[in-house]
Amino acid sequence: MNRRMVFYTIGRILNLEAGLLLIPLAVAVCYGEWTGVKAFAISALAALAAGLALCLLLKPKTKVIYAKEGFATATLVWIAVSLFGSLPFMISGEISNFFDAFFETVSGFTTTGASILKDVEAMSRGMLFWRSFTHWIGGMGVLVLMMAIVPTDSGRSIHIMRAEMAGPVVGKLVPKIKETARILYLIYFVLTVVEFVFLLFGGMPVYDSAVYSLGTAGTGGYGIKADSVSSYSPYLQWVIAVFMIIFAINFNLFYFVLLGRFKTALKNAELWCYLGITAAATGIVAFSIYPLYNNFGDSVRHSLFQVSSIMSTTGYSTADFNLWPSLAKGVLFILLFVGGCAGSTAGGLKISRVLIIFKMIQRDIRKMLHPHAVASVRIDGKPVDNSTLHRVSTYFTLYSLLIAATFLLISFEPFDFETNLTAAVTCVNNVGPGFGAVGPMGGYGDYSDFSTFVLSLAMLLGRLEIYPMLLSLDPKIWLKK
Amino acid sequence: MNRRMVFYTIGRILNLEAGLLLIPLAVAVCYGEWTGVKAFAISALAALAAGLALCLLLKPKTKVIYAKEGFATATLVWIAVSLFGSLPFMISGEISNFFDAFFETVSGFTTTGASILKDVEAMSRGMLFWRSFTHWIGGMGVLVLMMAIVPTDSGRSIHIMRAEMAGPVVGKLVPKIKETARILYLIYFVLTVVEFVFLLFGGMPVYDSAVYSLGTAGTGGYGIKADSVSSYSPYLQWVIAVFMIIFAINFNLFYFVLLGRFKTALKNAELWCYLGITAAATGIVAFSIYPLYNNFGDSVRHSLFQVSSIMSTTGYSTADFNLWPSLAKGVLFILLFVGGCAGSTAGGLKISRVLIIFKMIQRDIRKMLHPHAVASVRIDGKPVDNSTLHRVSTYFTLYSLLIAATFLLISFEPFDFETNLTAAVTCVNNVGPGFGAVGPMGGYGDYSDFSTFVLSLAMLLGRLEIYPMLLSLDPKIWLKK
Repeated sequence: MNRRMVFYTIGRILNLEAGLLLIPLAVAVCYGEWTGVKAFAISALAALAAGLALCLLLKPKTKVIYAKEGFATATLVWIAVSLFGSLPFMISGEISNFFDAFFETVSGFTTTGASILKDVEAMSRGMLFWRSFTHWIGGMGVLVLMMAIVPTDSGRSIHIMRAEMAGPVVGKLVPKIKETARILYLIYFVLTVVEFVFLLFGGMPVYDSAVYSLGTAGTGGYGIKADSVSSYSPYLQWVIAVFMIIFAINFNLFYFVLLGRFKTALKNAELWCYLGITAAATGIVAFSIYPLYNNFGDSVRHSLFQVSSIMSTTGYSTADFNLWPSLAKGVLFILLFVGGCAGSTAGGLKISRVLIIFKMIQRDIRKMLHPHAVASVRIDGKPVDNSTLHRVSTYFTLYSLLIAATFLLISFEPFDFETNLTAAVTCVNNVGPGFGAVGPMGGYGDYSDFSTFVLSLAMLLGRLEIYPMLLSLDPKIWLKK
Repeated sequence: MNRRMVFYTIGRILNLEAGLLLIPLAVAVCYGEWTGVKAFAISALAALAAGLALCLLLKPKTKVIYAKEGFATATLVWIAVSLFGSLPFMISGEISNFFDAFFETVSGFTTTGASILKDVEAMSRGMLFWRSFTHWIGGMGVLVLMMAIVPTDSGRSIHIMRAEMAGPVVGKLVPKIKETARILYLIYFVLTVVEFVFLLFGGMPVYDSAVYSLGTAGTGGYGIKADSVSSYSPYLQWVIAVFMIIFAINFNLFYFVLLGRFKTALKNAELWCYLGITAAATGIVAFSIYPLYNNFGDSVRHSLFQVSSIMSTTGYSTADFNLWPSLAKGVLFILLFVGGCAGSTAGGLKISRVLIIFKMIQRDIRKMLHPHAVASVRIDGKPVDNSTLHRVSTYFTLYSLLIAATFLLISFEPFDFETNLTAAVTCVNNVGPGFGAVGPMGGYGDYSDFSTFVLSLAMLLGRLEIYPMLLSLDPKIWLKK
């Protein structure tokens, strides 16, 4: 294990985070929130000091890394970034408890959007901006961001990218990792700006537009109002719904569109599967809630908004779906697991995995009937190799175990079954809201420090897709060879 | 497809069922329940007529069968047996609605024990005996029973046995299938009688002892009292708890004990894993419910009873665990999925699958760190081949999809989330009680005909471990070649 390289990378990321903290600092300055300004300044200096110390003291002798360094780096970077990211909340005193501040920051970076705040509207503007900005940073990945903007000379960053980016298969768009990271971030940035403009155009204030664009782009879900998006106009709700759908699409497809390769983009099986599930779920939910609204347009709007919010794992809401009929809640519960497309900012199991699982079952049935037939699983016309198939099905079992373990660990809490179960599911899948006390109008503020910490780990495990963190727990990988 | 052989086997099974119906008929005679006697007599005649018709009209030209005939036979036999088994309820008018009667019978044969009855104590003794007797018949398998007692000349019954018996790997104890089936049934019969004697010894009336022995042996859960086992003495509750644990152990181990091969029996990894989970879960649940009972003995008894009832997928209860604290309910919820050992009468995912899944994840992690290392999954010292591993992990995904689909289909019901979700989980795993309205003191009587039918199918799919029924849906396998 090239330990120096791991810690050196963490150092560089902390320097980057110090720079990123200047943006909410500027926001706090604009609104004259001097406690906030001080908190952001101290946090940025702390991150910079730690970052420089790591970079200078642990300058690596060699930059060669392998898969295990990638796993360890991703794990530690995400923990470090969350720890330093929670400083502003604690220093300003707006979230004074460490476990709460850590939960809130992890929830931000992992784009979960679950909150321990009981009165979000009492928070300062700088802090709320920082919360939403963590979504944007974590959405595409903080290590990928570093690759995109900081000069690096390691040709082996693919190991880090693989450990941080979600989905069953992570590939490069162009031969150079650095270029791939730049293209992804460029698309990400431009789409965020487009949403911002659309929101401004609908009469949303500049600050609100910025916060909701960042939250939508990262598929996070932090807002600035107690009722999430309910009090905004239907136009604004439509805009956010459409962008939630867009940000859960594989970014590679946008790149193909930019290159003019529309056919390649439209041939993507995962895309159609994603849009199909969205349409079907929207239809069923709209049918189920129609008696509540007695209006076709409203039912469809609320239904599409909630469906795309859950599928993209964003977590905004225009209605308290916790009070919806069993059928609507049933559909939303299943969607909590599904998630968006691989290679997007969405969390969850990912549509491509669901698709592979279905095709694998189909193939297995064919094989049982005709043991000697040659049967392969094909996605987009290409055969999926057996090791990918195997990885997808063991990932599913591991993911189920993670949900079960999280649920059991927080079962010490006196909340009802529905609350604890959906809290575990929604945190592992990085969605945010669940049912019961953690519904869209509720929150995680009443959970104990122990459970808050368990759920923070569950969010990190879900975001990094379990393996990197699990592997980092093995003391053997830390040995010097 | 040797269709004649499939239907011929169904005919023989119906003849067997006609014979089995004479036992509750005798019970009804003893208690002078003449409506019941008439109902059983008509049902037996109907089964006999249908059975003889199939046997005579569709006498097969060849007895050669393959895996697909095994799947088709198991599927159709279980449906046929449930249809004819529900006749007594309908003819006597004690359960007049077809869907309810079918649900009750399927729940019996699949050893689920979920009931639509709102007042079980109002039922006649003959009918209640038949309900519990279906558990006993279904527990070890109706086709296996036929192999054990009816003269057959097909050397290929292993295909049928594989389709009906539960667990990841089905082997033969002795080279001859017929002998294997006989040994299994003999062990089953003797253990049932032993429990019966233990219950009699504790002062339980003869009729009650018979019903509860049959229900425990099949890991079913049908009783004769509204409060399940709550009103019996602690001694009787201990006896039932211990036998629930016993009947969820792999029957092969009892055979090894009979042969004096104690070492082989005690080396079984699944056994220790099963006992370990039982002990750990009992400890946690007892800790969680201690404040309710304020007594160490009572807490342990109620905890062990409920834990072994859920793990063995029986479903009896000595307390309304629906009212227990979140932690106890959380543990029981997870156990709903686990189930007993393979090769027992228990349902659920099976301990051996859980064990294989854990070891597979371990191996995968090792492989990710050391891609070139040779790593195999070993159970009981023997390596598990890759096709078994693959089957276990795809079975898990398919099983999860089945639960999700069942839950979605019954979400039309106005019940709460907890009720609908646990109803789906408990039916697929053949346990019986869930939480909420389907808790141990509740029932399925308020579900609509549609949901009752969906849950009946879910129980059958769970009992036959999905593949046989799924494969039988493919029209191609029914073609004449």
